[in-house]
Amino acid sequence: MKHCTAIAAIVLIAAPLGAEEKQAVLAPGEIVAAAPKADWAAIAASDLLVMELAADAKSKPRRVVIQLMPAPFSAGWIRNIRKLAAAQWWDGTSVNRVQDNYVVQWGDASEKKALPSGLEVVPESSYVANLASPVPCPVDVTDPGMCVGTSEYLLSNPIEPDRYAASGFTNGWPLGTNGSDMWPVHCYGMVGVGRDMPPNTGTGAELYTVIGHAPRHLDRNIALVGRVIEGIEHLSSLPRGTGALGFYETADERVPIRSMRIASEMETDKPLPKFEYLSTESASFAAYADARANRRDAFFIRPAGGADICNIPVPVRRAE
Amino acid sequence: MKHCTAIAAIVLIAAPLGAEEKQAVLAPGEIVAAAPKADWAAIAASDLLVMELAADAKSKPRRVVIQLMPAPFSAGWIRNIRKLAAAQWWDGTSVNRVQDNYVVQWGDASEKKALPSGLEVVPESSYVANLASPVPCPVDVTDPGMCVGTSEYLLSNPIEPDRYAASGFTNGWPLGTNGSDMWPVHCYGMVGVGRDMPPNTGTGAELYTVIGHAPRHLDRNIALVGRVIEGIEHLSSLPRGTGALGFYETADERVPIRSMRIASEMETDKPLPKFEYLSTESASFAAYADARANRRDAFFIRPAGGADICNIPVPVRRAE
Repeated sequence: MKHCTAIAAIVLIAAPLGAEEKQAVLAPGEIVAAAPKADWAAIAASDLLVMELAADAKSKPRRVVIQLMPAPFSAGWIRNIRKLAAAQWWDGTSVNRVQDNYVVQWGDASEKKALPSGLEVVPESSYVANLASPVPCPVDVTDPGMCVGTSEYLLSNPIEPDRYAASGFTNGWPLGTNGSDMWPVHCYGMVGVGRDMPPNTGTGAELYTVIGHAPRHLDRNIALVGRVIEGIEHLSSLPRGTGALGFYETADERVPIRSMRIASEMETDKPLPKFEYLSTESASFAAYADARANRRDAFFIRPAGGADICNIPVPVRRAE
Repeated sequence: MKHCTAIAAIVLIAAPLGAEEKQAVLAPGEIVAAAPKADWAAIAASDLLVMELAADAKSKPRRVVIQLMPAPFSAGWIRNIRKLAAAQWWDGTSVNRVQDNYVVQWGDASEKKALPSGLEVVPESSYVANLASPVPCPVDVTDPGMCVGTSEYLLSNPIEPDRYAASGFTNGWPLGTNGSDMWPVHCYGMVGVGRDMPPNTGTGAELYTVIGHAPRHLDRNIALVGRVIEGIEHLSSLPRGTGALGFYETADERVPIRSMRIASEMETDKPLPKFEYLSTESASFAAYADARANRRDAFFIRPAGGADICNIPVPVRRAE
């Protein structure tokens, strides 16, 4: 067991425009496109959860690719999700809820399907990662940079708070912190664990993703386990449910889930594409985040001077 | 010509929970449902822009209702929009762009349809309302409370800034301010005026609405003219465009617009429903906004202690 200490945070402070900076008029997308290959970090296939929905009305396949979070965030639920995928538990379940400007949710509509044995009951303390003590990396992690441990770097780099918390990015993920804890934040496309009233009742079998304005009030009240990195349009463009909370009222409306698998465990003739994210510790990301906060490209006449963390989506792309 | 001076602002500050407050465990929706009728303000039919899309694949009608902003915000563009609606200019145009987590945009896909005469060229200074001098109400406004004039009330009620600006609500609208100007902010469902590079090139003929996380970097860079108050699902659930910026690549993908009219000018056997919004100057709204920032209902174990302005959507409903 080893301790990991890699934390980095991006300081997002509006800087006045100097003469040199005025020449840096690249749009955020152009900065990303120009980022050197070394600034991109590979996403392991073992961290990808692939959901295949039933084909759409035009017989087109609908695949949604989810990247799971690294330890120490939500590790218990993610272990459960790996077990559920290995047990092919989601096959034959469905998308059951689509609430406009909020979430799409999927799982077993009957709420009666037996769960595989060995799932953990994860306590609410796991909604956050405590920074006071280093957190051990799971033994199966090959890249220690994927683990988060101490608060030293973070605390020496204070981040401008928004209305919810101080926030920034570590290892490609948007995180909030109060100085003693860190936690993932509910940005568009983040994937979380549905639960009942008691905060330890979410197993990971019932999942949702955000399809609207960031519902940050859910931060620290529900577990986030990953984010959709490809195919979110197959969820966000579904018809909205007309029942309470956007649940579909009839079985016909539900969208069948054919399968949900960890990419490295998929049996397929055609290998899944590889994905990579723009390292949030790279100079390219710093420039991108600054450009998101201070648009200087031609269309913009008044740079905002700031950006909330969910308005700085971490770039993810298919690797060549 | 009269001067209007009604401004109110909601102070959204996290308050520590006292013993009494702990008993106030209503969810935001419950507070809204319990609001007395006197806390609701009617929306004039002359401020509603009604878009009828072609029926969907199941022959169901698709109606989108937009509330136009009151003076002094974006008044020139809104005058243009009233002329375009009276000229039935949008009939036969289409929804041309659906970009995930960003906007849906509609207008004339050919960009060649002749505009009605008499449209104004509105200068970029109109992206904001200057607070230094009172702004005259338009002569056709019957409710002076619908106009915004001086900054006195606002400045005596400082609002917690977010990463973009100080912000709050006035007469039902989410607004940002820097102390000298006020402007509408790009929350989910807000409707804006597409333009080319020069900031005075938007007429109001090309419109968009936000269907994702609030793109606040657009504030003060583009004109906002209203918000969708009913039927946004007919736009937000459309298939995403596969062209650059989410534009549809073929004419077949575009969604035809049958008509777009000001509600009070519609010729219809069945009168349009009336709408009302929860007055942002009411005690009910203050309680609702506080509850959005500090969820104390049973599901929540950690109230956020704050909320960004776009996470406090102004309640709008059909009037009885």
